[in-house]
Amino acid sequence: MSLIFIGTVALDSMESPYGKADMIPGGSALYGSLAASYFTDQVKLVAVIGGDFPKSGLEMIQDHHINIEGLQIKPQEKSFYWSGKYHENMNNRDTLITDLNVLANFDPIIPESYQDCEYLMLGNLTPQIQIKVIERIHKRPKLIVMDTMNYWMDSELEALLKVIQMVDVLTINDEESRQLSGEYSLAKAAKKILTMGPKYLVIKKGEHGALLFSKEEVFIAPGLPLEEVYDPTGAGDSFAGGFIGYIAKMQDTSFATLKKAIIHGSAMGSFCVENFGPDSLQNLSQEDIAARVKEFISLTTFAV
Amino acid sequence: MSLIFIGTVALDSMESPYGKADMIPGGSALYGSLAASYFTDQVKLVAVIGGDFPKSGLEMIQDHHINIEGLQIKPQEKSFYWSGKYHENMNNRDTLITDLNVLANFDPIIPESYQDCEYLMLGNLTPQIQIKVIERIHKRPKLIVMDTMNYWMDSELEALLKVIQMVDVLTINDEESRQLSGEYSLAKAAKKILTMGPKYLVIKKGEHGALLFSKEEVFIAPGLPLEEVYDPTGAGDSFAGGFIGYIAKMQDTSFATLKKAIIHGSAMGSFCVENFGPDSLQNLSQEDIAARVKEFISLTTFAV
Repeated sequence: MSLIFIGTVALDSMESPYGKADMIPGGSALYGSLAASYFTDQVKLVAVIGGDFPKSGLEMIQDHHINIEGLQIKPQEKSFYWSGKYHENMNNRDTLITDLNVLANFDPIIPESYQDCEYLMLGNLTPQIQIKVIERIHKRPKLIVMDTMNYWMDSELEALLKVIQMVDVLTINDEESRQLSGEYSLAKAAKKILTMGPKYLVIKKGEHGALLFSKEEVFIAPGLPLEEVYDPTGAGDSFAGGFIGYIAKMQDTSFATLKKAIIHGSAMGSFCVENFGPDSLQNLSQEDIAARVKEFISLTTFAV
Repeated sequence: MSLIFIGTVALDSMESPYGKADMIPGGSALYGSLAASYFTDQVKLVAVIGGDFPKSGLEMIQDHHINIEGLQIKPQEKSFYWSGKYHENMNNRDTLITDLNVLANFDPIIPESYQDCEYLMLGNLTPQIQIKVIERIHKRPKLIVMDTMNYWMDSELEALLKVIQMVDVLTINDEESRQLSGEYSLAKAAKKILTMGPKYLVIKKGEHGALLFSKEEVFIAPGLPLEEVYDPTGAGDSFAGGFIGYIAKMQDTSFATLKKAIIHGSAMGSFCVENFGPDSLQNLSQEDIAARVKEFISLTTFAV
């Protein structure tokens, strides 16, 4: 049940109406692999960092028994840096700074010990790098899940459409699914996107929950009405980590399991936003997660 | 299980990217009483219309066995007129014209035969009129549900807060719940609004579904991902009609029944938007409704 998580490991600065944080560890693969580590001890990271990445960040990853053989460290270079600001409506954010730094020439290495990979999560990254990772894994994983964003739809659509053809599950948000399909109705957008390659589409709607589409079925995970949302950074990545982590744990890719994976992903995303940075993903217990999943279930359950 | 529905019976003109309609029957009490009529044959209308209201509109109401003893007709006056335009994002609309006409001096009459009312739905109207209706029903109904909108929060807050104190359930949308409470988080907004009088709060989120809050519990009804939304006019009123209609049918006001009422309300709202005006509420069968409710249930159901 080995699981590769590729994406960014970064330094982030962010500000929300509830506080701010400066140059703290972040990135899609950091949040995602931390979240996934609660479901399997076979999480293998593929990413690149610079010499400025703090030791505490590396320790956080290692404390969760995440394999970092595929994590490249370039001592002379700077880590990928992102800075953003959230307004009261946490579904939207302004990106203030994106410094690619070490990411500009990222050439992903898949160590030999990673070749047993059964589940592959392609975090949000250049489509060309996502393709390279798929090509460098000798035996096709049982399930490839891919995250992306509107930025690549604007700038690298051709390469993006090529990766989308190669994966099993695409996870994007509602606006991105509208942009990718040219359809406003999410039902229509999903129908169209499911002709582009993936068997399943996950549409993330932030506080409004998430939708899972196959060609025949739809499932909706509600958004948990949280009293406090401090920092949505990494929520989508934590969702992805919980989603693929749960699938790896269950060793099953049926729609029935994917539905439960969406709930577990939503639970991990909901923990993530309750604190600044990846703090709230560090010391969860299995009981915390089970209790949160139960909250999600009780939200939509009633006697028929 | 007699149910009074008070609100507007109007003439509407609307335009959406999918078409337009001119001067067709509408209004909160028209949509709401039609929707409620599928659950009980004891729907009693309180409203006022002018001499210009078409015979076909009155027939539509009577075909659904809705009692119109409380419907005042002022032959010399014009019906309430509303005109609006929807953009691709159907959650928002521009109101182009609001002519109060006959509504300006509306003095609601509660006929003697309505005094057995057990369930009262106060559709969106001037708070002063909503108060009058409550005062004119001699015996307090088992459940009073009230709809309102941001317009009254801006212009009649004091009277509005007075009605809110008198009712059991308040139904508003997410923006309105933020405005009324001054809280951005819907969980916090709900907590605050539930100190203002009502036992239950329903927050309607359009395509994102609806939330039901009591002081102790939360329930979420998903939004059905529809391929085509032609005209959202009346969706909230149809929701209210299905909601209170189902409660009247079950003769029970427990949270467990309210959860199912939210699903039935959502089903009626989803039918409403599939056509221009109230057309899609005219010829539904009990099987149509049961099938739609089942769709809602299957959307969020999974084996634990």
